[in-house]
Amino acid sequence: MNTLRQLLPRLLPIAGWLPRYTVQRFGADLAASVVVAVLLIPQSVAYALIAGLPPQAGLYASTLPLLVYALLGSSMTQSVGPMALTSLMTASAIAPLIASGMTPQAAAAALALISGAALLGFGLLRLGFLTHFLSLPVVSGFTSGTALLIAAGQWHTLFADAASFGVIALALLVFSSDGLPRLLPGGRSSWLLARAAPLLALILLTVWAAWHGGISTLGSLPAGLPGWQWPAVTLEQARSMLLPAMLVGLVGFLQSITIAQTLALQRQETLQPDQELIALGASNIAAACVGGLPVSGGFSRTAVNAQAGAQTPLAGVMTAGWIMLAALWLGQWLALIPKAALAATIMLAAFKLLDWRMLRATWQFSRRDVAALVGTLLATVLLGAVEGVAIGVLLSLALFIYRTSRPQVVQLGRLPGSEHFRNVRLYEVETHPGVLLVRIDEQLYFGNTRHIESALTALLAEHGDVRDLVLVLSAVNDVDFSGADWLMRLQPILRTRGIRIHLAEVKARVRKQLERGHVLQALDGEVFLSSHQAFCTLATGHTPDYEI
Amino acid sequence: MNTLRQLLPRLLPIAGWLPRYTVQRFGADLAASVVVAVLLIPQSVAYALIAGLPPQAGLYASTLPLLVYALLGSSMTQSVGPMALTSLMTASAIAPLIASGMTPQAAAAALALISGAALLGFGLLRLGFLTHFLSLPVVSGFTSGTALLIAAGQWHTLFADAASFGVIALALLVFSSDGLPRLLPGGRSSWLLARAAPLLALILLTVWAAWHGGISTLGSLPAGLPGWQWPAVTLEQARSMLLPAMLVGLVGFLQSITIAQTLALQRQETLQPDQELIALGASNIAAACVGGLPVSGGFSRTAVNAQAGAQTPLAGVMTAGWIMLAALWLGQWLALIPKAALAATIMLAAFKLLDWRMLRATWQFSRRDVAALVGTLLATVLLGAVEGVAIGVLLSLALFIYRTSRPQVVQLGRLPGSEHFRNVRLYEVETHPGVLLVRIDEQLYFGNTRHIESALTALLAEHGDVRDLVLVLSAVNDVDFSGADWLMRLQPILRTRGIRIHLAEVKARVRKQLERGHVLQALDGEVFLSSHQAFCTLATGHTPDYEI
Repeated sequence: MNTLRQLLPRLLPIAGWLPRYTVQRFGADLAASVVVAVLLIPQSVAYALIAGLPPQAGLYASTLPLLVYALLGSSMTQSVGPMALTSLMTASAIAPLIASGMTPQAAAAALALISGAALLGFGLLRLGFLTHFLSLPVVSGFTSGTALLIAAGQWHTLFADAASFGVIALALLVFSSDGLPRLLPGGRSSWLLARAAPLLALILLTVWAAWHGGISTLGSLPAGLPGWQWPAVTLEQARSMLLPAMLVGLVGFLQSITIAQTLALQRQETLQPDQELIALGASNIAAACVGGLPVSGGFSRTAVNAQAGAQTPLAGVMTAGWIMLAALWLGQWLALIPKAALAATIMLAAFKLLDWRMLRATWQFSRRDVAALVGTLLATVLLGAVEGVAIGVLLSLALFIYRTSRPQVVQLGRLPGSEHFRNVRLYEVETHPGVLLVRIDEQLYFGNTRHIESALTALLAEHGDVRDLVLVLSAVNDVDFSGADWLMRLQPILRTRGIRIHLAEVKARVRKQLERGHVLQALDGEVFLSSHQAFCTLATGHTPDYEI
Repeated sequence: MNTLRQLLPRLLPIAGWLPRYTVQRFGADLAASVVVAVLLIPQSVAYALIAGLPPQAGLYASTLPLLVYALLGSSMTQSVGPMALTSLMTASAIAPLIASGMTPQAAAAALALISGAALLGFGLLRLGFLTHFLSLPVVSGFTSGTALLIAAGQWHTLFADAASFGVIALALLVFSSDGLPRLLPGGRSSWLLARAAPLLALILLTVWAAWHGGISTLGSLPAGLPGWQWPAVTLEQARSMLLPAMLVGLVGFLQSITIAQTLALQRQETLQPDQELIALGASNIAAACVGGLPVSGGFSRTAVNAQAGAQTPLAGVMTAGWIMLAALWLGQWLALIPKAALAATIMLAAFKLLDWRMLRATWQFSRRDVAALVGTLLATVLLGAVEGVAIGVLLSLALFIYRTSRPQVVQLGRLPGSEHFRNVRLYEVETHPGVLLVRIDEQLYFGNTRHIESALTALLAEHGDVRDLVLVLSAVNDVDFSGADWLMRLQPILRTRGIRIHLAEVKARVRKQLERGHVLQALDGEVFLSSHQAFCTLATGHTPDYEI
């Protein structure tokens, strides 16, 4: 019984916070829910358009998934719904299904279902670590590439009717979202006004367009609540969509977990990553069941939710309520929104995603990280959003492997008066003829043994008088079978040249590996605790007395 | 002029050895060429059958490619021709082309052409290091898997006519290749007899089959030299074949270079790996032009060539001459060889490829290496030879990456009386409350920062009184952008808990990376030369005087 009481809040986080719910918290959640709903209604419609879906799909995806997340999510402030990155990935992932005759909405729902099932599976198998392989440069390059694609995709809509209207819409939205907040004084009402300003600008543009006429609008939205539906998808389709669906899910999860972790840290709450996978997976399945599109937590909406004072996931439930009311009663008004005004909203959001800062930072850091960022960006723009993520991950892993395949191999000498050994090229150190200390700066594995052998051969050629070669393994963290085999084969070769191999600073794990590979048993030389011990013993014949 | 004289033997190795050719060498090369030709004639025919080609394709592939290799190769003893592994890969790679209506021989020639072009390109771009990613367990698993496939493929042929003939053929060949050599005394004539025994057995079986009748034979071989032909392959076909062709080429190159390097080492000759790529690439293009199949250097044939006394690649030219004579005049006799006898030869060769030793060795070594071996073996058997290699490489890289994503993070303490610091769990060491020394045993990169953070958090939770955290970076060889960014974000988090981060034993390269990532500039604590210096300074307030 006690175990159940401990376990239940982990499996069903709502069981942890609901019993302690208070009236104060209700007031805070209610206020936050209104602010977020005002933000979400135009955003959801806009993201549906990015995915190539009818506007109501975005609204539907902002209803049931929020209820499911409130039940299962471990973050107190996360707000889920359709997001820019995943919406563009959705457009790219469902294109083949649409080509084979599916309606866009059915295809998006199928994608949400498979993506949700994949996330659930990852959560149950504790595979959340897979997102660790989305490096910062890859995420940045992907985000910027997606932003460019989204902006380019809206260009035509923005200037379709009257160029002047497009320019005015863009200018007004830029002012309301960027200029106005800077002009306002501090304080809560200013903050609320700044949040509401883009919506007010959208309303203004809608009224103006209705007044003028000749500007094409969203057109009729079906009034009413989303109907329950189980996405019809064949096994063959599911298989062909599995990889894109997994990538959509992982990108969405990465977004969710990043913002949720930052906020949990600030608010000193704990977050369970695997529970978040399960919650997000279930939310996506819920999105599929109401004819929506893949959902995830988003930076801006979650930040707004937290800043507006949300205390518990009940804020999300209430947000879902407002959006259902909007779906019920606002359809005819939403229909009047000019397409160009929404395009301007989307374009603006896209430009904010462009990540110049990271490009500059990686540029200063290393060519490898710039290559990962730019490669991902180009792959995203040229090949598509799903392909972009996949290529980015593979590219960054390939660059990592390439780096590990060409490790530094440096000669060491003793810092005078100390027991420490450093690179002879960088420090004024003592060496001894006949004794060569060499540090290998990487695990020994199949990918780098031949590179290390070349580097060793070059060092031995420089020092023709060497009789004792000490391999200092302080930076070798792991030896695989090929690495151990290489050491075994190296020894007889050097023996014919009159050189003994010794080892120093061998970590416990590596020592075990070398034993299992029979390297230690076959070693001509000795295994020294430290470079210092090796140097003293081989150069002076005197062994320091701390040997253990 | 001098430069040309130095350069020419590198680009065209024949220019290096031909001017110094002697009559003694000619005699040795001639003798070796006869021994190798006797080995090659049945082998070439057998490997053609493995690839699903008419027997003459194997003979043709053993003519012009040997001449081209003699011109360009840098190994004095390498003998090229069709080999078991690449022949089975050929069968697997050309299956789609045959399905689309090409003849097997044309498809194999096209594969040899593309494979040769890829090797040439790798050689010119100095990409020979790609073979480093074929780890020993992968090569072993692939070889054993291929052996099983080859043996299974011959089963039906061996017992097609009369089970008794199959059994006798197998027994006779096993005796001639394994039993007889053990019974013979030492010495050169015994060695030659042992080499010739399998051929004699084959001749015996052929005579017997002709006598008895009712045993199906190879049937008519076209007499005469191979005709010159340029493989007809469309750009579309070339593109679809590129990956398999590259894998066939790399596996062939790996085989060639491994045996050539071993022999060069024994004979104190030098080998130029990139030149070998070029020579093997050109040899494959030559194979394509005479209607052969992909060729490579092989273990047994090259070893026999060297043991038979070959001094220069001219031995290969003469071997090619004997095989051309065989193609011209032996066709009618080769046609009489019973298919079952060749099947027995192939099966025997396949069983010798089975690599039990490596399976046992990796089994003792680590689960990771066993997984790579067994995974490659299964993929080869279940999915095919080309897929097997590709999956093996990806699997071993994935296992490597997984390992780097979960590094050891260990607390250090001082070995009493020394300046050395070791894992507190393994050694009796001194620690100091408030000061925590932690060694991170891997590069810091996007794949492992979160794992390291969890491990650090756990260590800090164990030691609630820590004020100074010293990250000992002796085993950190590289920091990427994500790693540096993680350190930047870690610092303010620990600062709120009253903990300062210090660094120790930072390698020069890592120091530069941390500077470029602005980590050093933002560091709350200090950068110490050694763990010893950090420990003394933080625990006792006294800094050792060797600071530089």
